[in-house]
Amino acid sequence: MTAETTGPANPPATAGGNSPVQLLEKHRDTLDQALEAIRSRAYWSPHPEHPKAYGAASGKEGSLGAEEGQAAFDALRGTRFELPGQPGTDGWTATESSPYGLGMGIEYPHPDPDRLLPAMRLAMPAWREAGPEARAAVCLEILARISARTHEFAHAVMHTSGQAFMMAFQAGGPHAQDRGMEAVAYAYVEQVRTPDAADWSKPQGKRDPLNLSKQFTAVGRGISLLIGCNTFPTWNGYPGLFASLATGNPVLVKPHPRAVLPLALTVRIAREVLHEAGFDPNLVALAAEREGEGLAKELAVRPEVRIIDYTGSTAFGEWLETHARQAQVYTEKAGVNTVVIDSTDDYRGMLGNLAFSLSLYSGQMCTTPQNLLIPRDGISTDDGDKSYDEVVADLAGAVGKLLGDDARANALLGAIVNPQVGERIDAAGSLGEVALASRSVTNPDFPGATVRTPVIIKLESAKPDAEAVYLSECFGPVSFAVAVESTPDAVALLRHTVREKGAMTVGAYTTSPDMERLIEDACLEECAQLSLNLTGGVYVNQTAAFSDFHGSGGNPAANAALVDGAFVSNRFRTVEVRRPA
Amino acid sequence: MTAETTGPANPPATAGGNSPVQLLEKHRDTLDQALEAIRSRAYWSPHPEHPKAYGAASGKEGSLGAEEGQAAFDALRGTRFELPGQPGTDGWTATESSPYGLGMGIEYPHPDPDRLLPAMRLAMPAWREAGPEARAAVCLEILARISARTHEFAHAVMHTSGQAFMMAFQAGGPHAQDRGMEAVAYAYVEQVRTPDAADWSKPQGKRDPLNLSKQFTAVGRGISLLIGCNTFPTWNGYPGLFASLATGNPVLVKPHPRAVLPLALTVRIAREVLHEAGFDPNLVALAAEREGEGLAKELAVRPEVRIIDYTGSTAFGEWLETHARQAQVYTEKAGVNTVVIDSTDDYRGMLGNLAFSLSLYSGQMCTTPQNLLIPRDGISTDDGDKSYDEVVADLAGAVGKLLGDDARANALLGAIVNPQVGERIDAAGSLGEVALASRSVTNPDFPGATVRTPVIIKLESAKPDAEAVYLSECFGPVSFAVAVESTPDAVALLRHTVREKGAMTVGAYTTSPDMERLIEDACLEECAQLSLNLTGGVYVNQTAAFSDFHGSGGNPAANAALVDGAFVSNRFRTVEVRRPA
Repeated sequence: MTAETTGPANPPATAGGNSPVQLLEKHRDTLDQALEAIRSRAYWSPHPEHPKAYGAASGKEGSLGAEEGQAAFDALRGTRFELPGQPGTDGWTATESSPYGLGMGIEYPHPDPDRLLPAMRLAMPAWREAGPEARAAVCLEILARISARTHEFAHAVMHTSGQAFMMAFQAGGPHAQDRGMEAVAYAYVEQVRTPDAADWSKPQGKRDPLNLSKQFTAVGRGISLLIGCNTFPTWNGYPGLFASLATGNPVLVKPHPRAVLPLALTVRIAREVLHEAGFDPNLVALAAEREGEGLAKELAVRPEVRIIDYTGSTAFGEWLETHARQAQVYTEKAGVNTVVIDSTDDYRGMLGNLAFSLSLYSGQMCTTPQNLLIPRDGISTDDGDKSYDEVVADLAGAVGKLLGDDARANALLGAIVNPQVGERIDAAGSLGEVALASRSVTNPDFPGATVRTPVIIKLESAKPDAEAVYLSECFGPVSFAVAVESTPDAVALLRHTVREKGAMTVGAYTTSPDMERLIEDACLEECAQLSLNLTGGVYVNQTAAFSDFHGSGGNPAANAALVDGAFVSNRFRTVEVRRPA
Repeated sequence: MTAETTGPANPPATAGGNSPVQLLEKHRDTLDQALEAIRSRAYWSPHPEHPKAYGAASGKEGSLGAEEGQAAFDALRGTRFELPGQPGTDGWTATESSPYGLGMGIEYPHPDPDRLLPAMRLAMPAWREAGPEARAAVCLEILARISARTHEFAHAVMHTSGQAFMMAFQAGGPHAQDRGMEAVAYAYVEQVRTPDAADWSKPQGKRDPLNLSKQFTAVGRGISLLIGCNTFPTWNGYPGLFASLATGNPVLVKPHPRAVLPLALTVRIAREVLHEAGFDPNLVALAAEREGEGLAKELAVRPEVRIIDYTGSTAFGEWLETHARQAQVYTEKAGVNTVVIDSTDDYRGMLGNLAFSLSLYSGQMCTTPQNLLIPRDGISTDDGDKSYDEVVADLAGAVGKLLGDDARANALLGAIVNPQVGERIDAAGSLGEVALASRSVTNPDFPGATVRTPVIIKLESAKPDAEAVYLSECFGPVSFAVAVESTPDAVALLRHTVREKGAMTVGAYTTSPDMERLIEDACLEECAQLSLNLTGGVYVNQTAAFSDFHGSGGNPAANAALVDGAFVSNRFRTVEVRRPA
């Protein structure tokens, strides 16, 4: 035996072999691939989209198959969701009700911020000292454990957001995990662009040089508050959660009261991984609120809270920006998304693509198109010229056909997330001429679900009352086919809409290079993300992590984009210590 | 002749051979070196500090020597400062008076924002289309032309800030240019981390992959407003100016009314370079204000203004943060800088270093130490134990010796920038026991200058009234030798000071590893930049671009650090256009 083989095979490990060093070894390749992906922005994802890729057959440790995931979810219902070791629990709260009518009855710990926040702050120094690599490795292990339980998360997302199962599986599972990993990659790069140490030697002519030894440490800002949303609790939550954790901040997760479970599961997994890796699990904690409590408002202005991530209404987003002055505030608010329809060389493809975009998750996405701007004299297509009325009628027909089969409609629409959306659908008919009426669909598996097909309303841009209608966000499956004078007029209206109301997405169809340039220039100048001539299996309301930016951060719909340098760079600061060499 | 040699030797150039392509060729090496410097953070500067390095002998085109620089400055006095082509001039304004008593009498154009701002916005599209490389090249050419005229700038800075000539030369010249170039380098890296274009191909099992072609464009946010300061018009102004310009934003420069010339010269040079490179010179414009006009307040809330850089009082910085909600606001405000004195192995070196720090530019730096925390039972040194009284007396003696010679005192102190600083010096004696009184120094070259040596006041931390004194910023050459119970008590007071009042710098002297660790941890947790045991030719109040961060951006003294990723990453947004491949 030589000296090499008598030593320990691995560096000292905590119980379970999940020391930071071991986790880094385990996830180094994935991190490197993620770093390459955000540089090239080519397609990449380590998280499979297909439900069959999970479970024992996947060969991945702890991976739950379809039945196991369902069972795990069912086992949570009607129980108390324990978070071992989370301090400052002040009673229990249950606020969820499935849009599918399923009984949830899960009780979560309600926090006493005066006890919880100080405990979270105590966790910071060791997390800071671990450094960016170890923090990234721990974050990637959290994501790997979440990924293994994607089937369980799919049910949790489905029964809180109302998404159909397949969408809850993909958007709430792999796509959300991708966005979280993207944030980890950006956070890592941002922290290591400054070296840990530098020797500085400044020449002084004939005298000796001045020599200093410098140390640079990335330090978190303080407690990061995640205010979750109802419709995409994981997808919209993971970027901020992982960006803050990876940059050295404890993260307090305040879920939407109707969508607690997906984030509560996330918190529990994060705490387990942190503990196993030798860190204080209070680096991630849950703050579930009581009905109507307004806990976010209370937490947002606590001096310990230095970062806030929020997705939701414009009103509360602006409240946060105005009042939480002690924090960096990242908000995604409401917007009005536009599609400019000028011309197409694939009329069928265009109609099919738009019909899918309007129908997916009943239009309850921040990225769903609302206003379809169509010249009132019609458009040219590969199927001949089409009048405004024809385009609208054909689109209504395409939606009707897409959702004609109830099983398919259920699979695509999911359930209406809350009664307010249903009320907006019912009220839409009074806003203009109905081109497509909404119908109710029965879900045989969940008779309690409210399932509604989209409404399309015809509006005249020139009519004085119309602008107030189409320039307000009408969240849900309501869209407006707005007749405009010409494509340049449509572009002018697009500019006005983005500037005044914001937009997460813009779509456009045109075969004219001049009109394409006009639309592109408008999006560049008004700072909106543009999808051109989508006719196949990519939709304007979907973005892919590592490649697409979600929002621009430069118009009123959101002050940040997922994910770029600006989303991570101000979550930490670099502290320098210099001394004579 | 072959085809290769008949073509043009260079790409099409504008008059004078200053096309973006040619400028990039000229400055590519410098940019690469700057990029390497911000990665390694080793010493680097392309801008010589020695006045003799400038002028015809330097071999650099357009470089002004000492006499030429003086003559250029003298030629500006008593004239109208023209900015050819800047639109919207609404009369002329002259507000400067040299702290050295020299007649300035320079009139600057006063702007009509309603005409100037729209003209600046019109300049944006072509600047955006030029791309990050061309923008960096143009910025580096602006800096090169400024560098060539460093002697002229030195006089302009001296006679507006009151800095002594050598300091005005170095801090207002090469050091400011370094900070500007550092900002260009960070801005360039941040924009090119996302590629211009990407091909995205997502596998679909047995079906054809989904293919998209994506374009990514860095777009500026809008007009960037630079609100200059009186004491370091170029050093504090260049980072924001160049960060914004390099990321695609027009920059409106609103100088301090007492320090217009250095920034007016900068604007004129920038406009010349932009014009020669084929861009709209209105990408950089001057907004000189009338006496007492408060133009910054008016400009800061204009909807066209989307970025603001500000250095100055906490009151106005907080006003901007509260009211200029349409803009990204980067502020450097007041702070209270602390030096903890625990022990030293070079007592003489420590005293000499501190004496210099307190004297340089009469303490009129945001980085000058204010509170010297000294255990009341004294400290141990290589020269034996020293009581609190001895340390204070020896420091007073060191300052007195450093400034004993009037010529040396003038060269180090410069002039008092405004009457308020003089009033604070005069009032200091009422705040506590005077350990060192200020004396007036005559400047034989400029008899009108107010030149004052520093005051040191002794305070007892335990006395109830003392805290209100030492926890207020007393800008100018007034420092407090605060007696504390122990070094741990000093560190506790340091923490409290940074958290409540902010700090641009922290200094400490200790030979104890335990105390060193305590001080380091305090700075890491309170987010302050620490200089340890400086006894030679590096001072706590000086930072070097490309290596040291100026401020942390994580305590109340400043919300940004010069220069890091966070300082540049939110000055532009990335707009994506995607289409089927």
